[in-house]
Amino acid sequence: MQWECFHHSPRSNWAYAYDKATIHLRVQTKRDDVEAVTAVTGDKYNWDGFHEDVPMEKVASDHFFDYWEAAVKPTYKRFSYGFRLHSGEETVFMTETGIGPDEPHPAGGYYEFPYIHEVDLFAAPEWAKEAVFYQIMPDRFAIGNPEINPAHTAEWGSTPTYENQFGGDLQGILDHLDHLTDLGVTAVYLTPIFESPSNHKYDTINYTVIDPHFGDKSLLKKLVKACHDLGIRVVLDAVFNHTGEQFPPFQDVLRHGEQSKYADWFHIHSFPAEVRDGVATYDTFGFFGSMPKLNTSNPEVKQYLLDVAQSWIKETDIDGWRLDVANEVDHQFWREFRQTVKAAKPDAYIIGEVWSDSRMWLLGDQFDSVMNYPFADKVMGFFASDDFDGRAFADQMSNLLMRYPQQTNEVIFNLLSSHDTPRVLTRMGEDKRKLKLAVVYLMTYIGTPCIFYGDEIGLKGGDDPDCRQCMIWDEEQQDRELYDFYKLLIDQRKSHPVLRSGRFRFLKADQGDKRIIYERLGEGEHYVVWMNPTGEQTAMTHPMETDDWEDALTGEHVPTIGGEQVIELEPFGYRIMCRKL
Amino acid sequence: MQWECFHHSPRSNWAYAYDKATIHLRVQTKRDDVEAVTAVTGDKYNWDGFHEDVPMEKVASDHFFDYWEAAVKPTYKRFSYGFRLHSGEETVFMTETGIGPDEPHPAGGYYEFPYIHEVDLFAAPEWAKEAVFYQIMPDRFAIGNPEINPAHTAEWGSTPTYENQFGGDLQGILDHLDHLTDLGVTAVYLTPIFESPSNHKYDTINYTVIDPHFGDKSLLKKLVKACHDLGIRVVLDAVFNHTGEQFPPFQDVLRHGEQSKYADWFHIHSFPAEVRDGVATYDTFGFFGSMPKLNTSNPEVKQYLLDVAQSWIKETDIDGWRLDVANEVDHQFWREFRQTVKAAKPDAYIIGEVWSDSRMWLLGDQFDSVMNYPFADKVMGFFASDDFDGRAFADQMSNLLMRYPQQTNEVIFNLLSSHDTPRVLTRMGEDKRKLKLAVVYLMTYIGTPCIFYGDEIGLKGGDDPDCRQCMIWDEEQQDRELYDFYKLLIDQRKSHPVLRSGRFRFLKADQGDKRIIYERLGEGEHYVVWMNPTGEQTAMTHPMETDDWEDALTGEHVPTIGGEQVIELEPFGYRIMCRKL
Repeated sequence: MQWECFHHSPRSNWAYAYDKATIHLRVQTKRDDVEAVTAVTGDKYNWDGFHEDVPMEKVASDHFFDYWEAAVKPTYKRFSYGFRLHSGEETVFMTETGIGPDEPHPAGGYYEFPYIHEVDLFAAPEWAKEAVFYQIMPDRFAIGNPEINPAHTAEWGSTPTYENQFGGDLQGILDHLDHLTDLGVTAVYLTPIFESPSNHKYDTINYTVIDPHFGDKSLLKKLVKACHDLGIRVVLDAVFNHTGEQFPPFQDVLRHGEQSKYADWFHIHSFPAEVRDGVATYDTFGFFGSMPKLNTSNPEVKQYLLDVAQSWIKETDIDGWRLDVANEVDHQFWREFRQTVKAAKPDAYIIGEVWSDSRMWLLGDQFDSVMNYPFADKVMGFFASDDFDGRAFADQMSNLLMRYPQQTNEVIFNLLSSHDTPRVLTRMGEDKRKLKLAVVYLMTYIGTPCIFYGDEIGLKGGDDPDCRQCMIWDEEQQDRELYDFYKLLIDQRKSHPVLRSGRFRFLKADQGDKRIIYERLGEGEHYVVWMNPTGEQTAMTHPMETDDWEDALTGEHVPTIGGEQVIELEPFGYRIMCRKL
Repeated sequence: MQWECFHHSPRSNWAYAYDKATIHLRVQTKRDDVEAVTAVTGDKYNWDGFHEDVPMEKVASDHFFDYWEAAVKPTYKRFSYGFRLHSGEETVFMTETGIGPDEPHPAGGYYEFPYIHEVDLFAAPEWAKEAVFYQIMPDRFAIGNPEINPAHTAEWGSTPTYENQFGGDLQGILDHLDHLTDLGVTAVYLTPIFESPSNHKYDTINYTVIDPHFGDKSLLKKLVKACHDLGIRVVLDAVFNHTGEQFPPFQDVLRHGEQSKYADWFHIHSFPAEVRDGVATYDTFGFFGSMPKLNTSNPEVKQYLLDVAQSWIKETDIDGWRLDVANEVDHQFWREFRQTVKAAKPDAYIIGEVWSDSRMWLLGDQFDSVMNYPFADKVMGFFASDDFDGRAFADQMSNLLMRYPQQTNEVIFNLLSSHDTPRVLTRMGEDKRKLKLAVVYLMTYIGTPCIFYGDEIGLKGGDDPDCRQCMIWDEEQQDRELYDFYKLLIDQRKSHPVLRSGRFRFLKADQGDKRIIYERLGEGEHYVVWMNPTGEQTAMTHPMETDDWEDALTGEHVPTIGGEQVIELEPFGYRIMCRKL
C-alpha cells in the first residue's frame, strides 16, 4: 500500500460531528490501492470497557484517491481512534503518531474526538435542505409600479449595459408570485434592494432603506408575508464588504479627512481619501474607487452592520442573508454576524459568496452554506464541452463532495448560473438538450439548487451585463416546453426526499466515455439516473438486482432482464429510474 | 514527480498571515522528489498589474514528505496563487482545481488568500515568545505559613499518594522567588489554587476564593506584584471543563434534582443525578463521578466562568490562563473566553491543555498556545531510548513543526515533564547526561520552554502521584551541578534572540546514526548545536563556511579547517557553537 497517500486529520471534513450523537470519520488512500479500512475506536478513559471496530465504506474516488467513511456513535460523546488498513497480505495501522505494521497500545498517540458539543455542530436550517431557490435581480424581473421607475428607464427587453436601469421593482415580484408557485420554487434570493444609484445595487448608500425605485419597507413586508403565505422563503443580499461612494459616512471622510468621525470606518492609507492616478488611497472592492471597503473590525461599523442584519429580520421577517464578497470580510465579523442573525431568527439561512474552497467559513461558527461555483464549473465542463469524460467528471464531483462534511453538502447552494456568470443556456452553446441534462443533474444532486430567474423560460446571455437581461413575460416568447421541464424536475425533487438527502454515488463513470449512471439511495427510495451526454444514440447496460424499476417521470415499468437493464438513450438523452425500498 | 503527494490547502498551517503584511505559503511534496517549487502569485482583480513569482525554500522534511515555504507580501493585502513544481525535464502546475502540465490562465480556479485581516491574525503576546516558564504545584513547592496547613499534613518529603497534602502554599512561593530569579525563569504557571478538597485542586469548589490552605486573594495579589517587580509573569490554571462534587451548584442539583435552578449547569442524562453501579447519570471528567462536567453552552455557566476569568485578571493582575482539559470544552466557549480575557488584559497568554493535534484551537480565535506533549514524547523517544535514530527524530520534529504556523511554533508551550507525566530524569533512566541533552534541546528549540519545579535540582518520580514529590530546599540534597547547568542554558536562551525566533533546521540527521547537528539562524546570530546521544565517544565532521565559530558556553574559538569543523564529543556530549552575523 502507498502509505504516503494515506491521509486523515482529526477535524474539518475528515472528522466531524454529523449530529449530536454521530461522528463521521473519513480516510483517504491511493485510488484502487487498499481493500479495506476499519476505524478502531474507544474511550480513552476506559478503552477496554468501551471500544468498537467500525468498518469503513469506500464512498467516493477522485483522480488520485479513494475516500473511506464511517459513522461512529460513541457511548460517551467522545472517543479516540486509529485506522487499520488492509490489502492482500499487508495490514497497517495509522494513528496521529504515524503509520506502521503494529497496532499501538490505545489510546496514547491515537486521534481524538474529544467531545461532541451541540453548540459547535454545523447546523444549517432544515428548510434550506428541502428548498428549491430562485434568484431574482429586482431591476430585471418585472415592473409593478412604473411610477417609481428611475428617470431614464430603458425599454423593457432592450440590451442591458453596465449602467441602464429597467424599472423592475418589489411590486413586480409580488405581481408574479404565481410564476414562482407554478414553477414550484420554495425560496427566493433577491440581489440587493437597499438604496443605491446602480442597477445592481452592490454599492449601497443606505442600508436601512429600500431603494425608492424598488419600493419601501412596508412593501417588502407585504412581499415577505405574501411569499410566506405561499410557502416561499425570502433571502436578501447583504453587501457588507464595501459601500457605495455616496454612503454618507464615506462622504464625510472625503469631506473632513482625518477629522471625520468615520475616518476609521474604512481602510484609509493616507489622507485625503481619494483616487490618485487611478489608485485609491483606501482599500476598495477590487480596484473600484467607488466601492470603499468597510473596516468591519471597527466596533461602530460592526454594530451598525449587525443592527442592519438583525432589524431587517425583525421588521420584515426575511429568512436569511446571502453575503456578498464574503471571503474578503474578517472571520471575527462573520462569527458575530451568525450569533446576531440566529438570535433574531434561529432558522435563518446564511449563504456566503465564496468562489473557492470555503472550509474556513463552514466550520459551524460562520456560514450555513456558500454559493457553489465550483459545482457550476464542473457541470459546465462536462455537459457543455468535451473537457471531461465520465471518469474525470466523477473525479471532480467526488473531490468537491469530500471537501465538506455531509451536512454541508446537503445545504450547499448549487447553481448553474447567476448574475456573475454567463447564462446556462448560453454556456451550453444554446443546445437545450445539454441544458436539460445539467438541470436533471442539478435537481437530482445533493445540495440546495438555485435557478437564476429566466433560465427556466430560455433566457440567454453572456458575461455581465449580458446575462442580466429582462425577464420575458409574454408566454409566446417564453420557451414553455423548457419551463414545463424545469417544473417537472422541481416537482420530482420536492416529492422525493431521497433526492435531497439520499446517498449520492456514481455507478458508471469511465475513461473515454461520457455516458454516466449515478444513484441516490435513501430511506424508502432508490433513484438511478442514466445520462448520455453525447451526440450519438446509445444503449447502456448496467447490472440491477431487482425488477421493480420505474421511469420516475412517466411511471413506466422498466424491466431488469438476466440481472441487468438495457436502456436506449437518444443523443443527449437521460432517464430517471426509481424504485421503492 | 509523484503528483498524488503534492498537498496544499488555502488555510491553517498551509496558508496563513504571519503578520499584517506577510502571508506564508507551504507546499508538501514527496521526499527527495521535487527540485524546485515556485509560488505564482497575483491580484485576481488585476493580475497583469500585480503579480510575482516567489521561489519557495525547502524548510523541512519528514518520513514521507518535503515541505516548501515562501513568505509573500502582496501589494493589496490579498492575492490568488498557484504553484509551479519542477524536477528534471518535468514542470507541472498546481491550483485549487488540480494538477497538470499547463499553467492555467489566472486567476480562476487558483487558490486564494482573500484579504489579510489583523483581527483574524494569530497573535500571541510578545512576552510569551521571550519567556522561560516554571511550573509549580503549590502544595508541593514550599510551606510559607504552617498555620494554614491542612489538618493531616504529611511530612515534607515523604512519599506522595493520591490523597496526602504537604502544606505548600502561596507564601511558600513568595518566600522562594529568589530561587526563580536566580534560576532565571521569567514566568510561572501555578496548578490550581482555588478552593478544593484535593491536593491537586482540579476539583474546584469555589472559583472565587483561593484555597484557605494556600492563602487568600490579598496574598495572591502580593505574590503577583512581587513577581512582576522581578520581571516574572504569573499564569493560573482554569479548570472549566468540570467542577468538584462539592461545588455548591452541583450539590444543589443532587439535592433538588430537576427542580434545582442549576439543573442545566451540568449534562444530566436522567434524574436523580447520581452514580449507579459505578456509572454516573451525568457527564463527568473521565469516569470520575466526583468531577461533574460543566455545561459551558448554558449562558449562566458561561457568564459565571467568564466573570471568574476576567475578575482574577482585573483584581490580581495575573498574566494569563492555562486551560485544563481544554479540548473537551466547546469552541464557542473558548472564543468568548478569548474575547473576555483579551479585553481585560490584551497581552494575557492563553495556553490550552490539548495532548493531540490542536489546530482547531490555534486558528487565532481561541488559544495562544497548547502544552506541547507531542514534543515531550519525541524528545524522550530520542534521548531516553533507542526508539529513533537521528533521521527518525528529525522526521518527527519536522512533522510537528509543519503542523502549525510559524508564529504558533514560536509560542507553543514546550515541556519535558509535568504533573501528568513521569519526571524527565526518571524517564531518562536517571542518566543525567541524557537529561542534559534534552534540556539543551529544549532551550535551543523554537517555542516557549517550561521547567517542572524541581527538575532543575534533580527531583525524580514516576507516574502521578510519584512525580509530584515535594521540592527539596536543602542545598546539600539538591543537585547543584544540574541546577547550574539549567541556569546556564536558561541564560543562553534569554541572552540570544536567535534561540527564540531564529529559523530552526537540522544539518545532520541520518539513518542508523543517533548523532545530530541542528541550527538556529536569525538576525545577527547563528547557532549550531552538535549532539552525541550515544554511549560512545565520537568525532563529528560537518562543513562550515566561516572560521568565526565560538563555543557559546565557554567563548572558546573553534576553528574551521579546510571548510569543515571536526568536533570531538564525549558519550552523551554536546557542543553549542555560535557566531555573529
